Amino acid sequence: MDTQVVIIGGGPSGLLLSQLLNRAGVATVVLERSSRDHVLSRIRAGILEWGTVQMLREAGVAARMDREGLPHDGCYLTDADLMVHIDFRALTGKQVMVYGQTEVTHDLYDAQDAMGTRIVHGVQDVTIHDLDQPQAAVEYTLNGQRHRLTCAYVAGCDGFHGVSRQTIPEQKRREFERVYPFGWLGILSRTPPVHDELIYANSPHGFALASMRNQSLVRYYVQVPLTDRPEDWPDDRFWAEFRRRIPSEAADRLVTGPSIEKSIAPLRSFVSEPLRWGRLFLVGDAAHIVPPTGAKGLNLAVSDVYYLHDALTQALLKNSDGGIDAYSERALQRIWKAMRFSWQMTTMLHRFEGEDSFAEQMRRASLAHLASSETARRDLAENYVGLPF
Amino acid sequence: MDTQVVIIGGGPSGLLLSQLLNRAGVATVVLERSSRDHVLSRIRAGILEWGTVQMLREAGVAARMDREGLPHDGCYLTDADLMVHIDFRALTGKQVMVYGQTEVTHDLYDAQDAMGTRIVHGVQDVTIHDLDQPQAAVEYTLNGQRHRLTCAYVAGCDGFHGVSRQTIPEQKRREFERVYPFGWLGILSRTPPVHDELIYANSPHGFALASMRNQSLVRYYVQVPLTDRPEDWPDDRFWAEFRRRIPSEAADRLVTGPSIEKSIAPLRSFVSEPLRWGRLFLVGDAAHIVPPTGAKGLNLAVSDVYYLHDALTQALLKNSDGGIDAYSERALQRIWKAMRFSWQMTTMLHRFEGEDSFAEQMRRASLAHLASSETARRDLAENYVGLPF
Repeated sequence: MDTQVVIIGGGPSGLLLSQLLNRAGVATVVLERSSRDHVLSRIRAGILEWGTVQMLREAGVAARMDREGLPHDGCYLTDADLMVHIDFRALTGKQVMVYGQTEVTHDLYDAQDAMGTRIVHGVQDVTIHDLDQPQAAVEYTLNGQRHRLTCAYVAGCDGFHGVSRQTIPEQKRREFERVYPFGWLGILSRTPPVHDELIYANSPHGFALASMRNQSLVRYYVQVPLTDRPEDWPDDRFWAEFRRRIPSEAADRLVTGPSIEKSIAPLRSFVSEPLRWGRLFLVGDAAHIVPPTGAKGLNLAVSDVYYLHDALTQALLKNSDGGIDAYSERALQRIWKAMRFSWQMTTMLHRFEGEDSFAEQMRRASLAHLASSETARRDLAENYVGLPF
Repeated sequence: MDTQVVIIGGGPSGLLLSQLLNRAGVATVVLERSSRDHVLSRIRAGILEWGTVQMLREAGVAARMDREGLPHDGCYLTDADLMVHIDFRALTGKQVMVYGQTEVTHDLYDAQDAMGTRIVHGVQDVTIHDLDQPQAAVEYTLNGQRHRLTCAYVAGCDGFHGVSRQTIPEQKRREFERVYPFGWLGILSRTPPVHDELIYANSPHGFALASMRNQSLVRYYVQVPLTDRPEDWPDDRFWAEFRRRIPSEAADRLVTGPSIEKSIAPLRSFVSEPLRWGRLFLVGDAAHIVPPTGAKGLNLAVSDVYYLHDALTQALLKNSDGGIDAYSERALQRIWKAMRFSWQMTTMLHRFEGEDSFAEQMRRASLAHLASSETARRDLAENYVGLPF
């Protein structure tokens, strides 16, 4: 065999899996379609559950995160001027860490470089073979040449559009999907955050989120129709719309400035079962997508990696198949919990075009319920900081 | 003035209000369209929150309920064979009481008779007047004769189709409505309950509820399309459908028998604001309807009565208008909480025609969440046993 595990996809989940496997003594090759610069230019999530923070520490890639990340003790859910504080620390004893996915990926590349693991960039036309044979194979094209790698297992960390999920025969997959009828227009701006914690804002005009990367770089979003394009939203229009959706207490402190990035992302819930097909295992976005409300996307990929690195290590170093046999079910249990939470946060906070008169009242009542019930706030906090692996 | 408060509607909320006011020394006249026998033949809800139980005790109408009612310490929410126990007593320290609304109404009539209060049955064409004048008036026809009663206040306890809400000018009302695309087919049968607690069952075939009136009289329901009629459901078909929707552990113990009542009720969420219009106050179904999932209908009428009897007593005996000025807002706060809970229970447990593949998974995930989270169970239990008045 050429290597023990071929990992398709060099984003944060593929790299973290490689990092954990190599530290345990399992050899890997990571295949990535894009250049490293391209991977590191993608702007993604920025909230790490405490379990994710622990995983990054155990993987030996946490030094910069622990220096530069911002631990947050809570967040706000708001409805017009009602601000409901979800005090993670008081309600659960835990926190979350504000630290961008791009930074996590950067740290993982540095750590992989230091370990000298093999990461191949620019691969094309990846195909996966022999998943029901004693050894699997992955073929790919690099610089016009076809290559073949044999291995014990293949980890599909190649995202929603990757080849890994498609390799499982369609009739053997069960797919569940909800496409939400709106998107998030997000901007990055070098301005101080409007509040020291995140604000998830419900308003009659739609949802807004005040997030941040650090004390001088904000990530703000407004819900927009799916038909809108970023060029429909000059900065002035964005700031006016954002301002009227957040509580006046926050709007009064809002500092505006030029956007340095602006894009619209659709919102989707998606799960494909099973996560295992012979010697292939799906991880993260390759198998499931959550809408960003609740910040579960990266964290869910990390819990998949947790279960899978454990399973592969057992299989390859201890000759025990218990972990890989249980992987799909074990990971899916946690995935469905995060799907539920993300769906609930999304429906509780977004305006749906054409909704009946009762729908907005239910969103307001849900926020009023959180305001009046410590039990409801604790339920939300337990899910937000992350359920146990 | 002919009386202090004219109460339109002789169902449980009108009678309870009359009972509490008369005990406090406020004179009332209750006007009811139907005969007493007709009122007492209506089959309605059967679960009393603990706050409702306390109210009935304070009103002096609890003796038979305390003898014959069944205190329940919990209920089950199920998904196929997964049975999630909601232990009210352990989670909240409270219980609920299984005691039919018909029995409550019966006890209230007996108590009103003993007090000699005035209840007029068979009134027609009720109209309400002079709500912005120093004294209001209610006119009605009885045995072909028109009558007029002057009073200080009018309580509209006359249900969804009654005249009271309609008396508030349409442009002054804000109405919120959700009509659910299914109904409940309910039967009464003289058989022993399938379980000693209620079972709210989610299944791929739709919702079912195993409720009871006493140890030898059950009230069972299945979700059906709104287009179905009771005659589409002979007993055999009902029992077969009910059996396949409840957990096999319960189905194995199911005792069937002839139905002694069978009807289909639509499910609706509805709120009309405000609850006060001059000297008129709306109570219960006159202002709001909940779907029956969660058993909030009667209980919510009782909390309206609690706020209103307090407000009217203050106004009439202590010359203080604070209570009547606050009534609408105070009652609506609790109403919207119960609307939210009933809507959530309904959407969590019912199958929606034409739903996407994700919807059923969210119901299952919601039940799995309850199964794994004591916090989520406590949130449900706190709402089920009833939020404080």
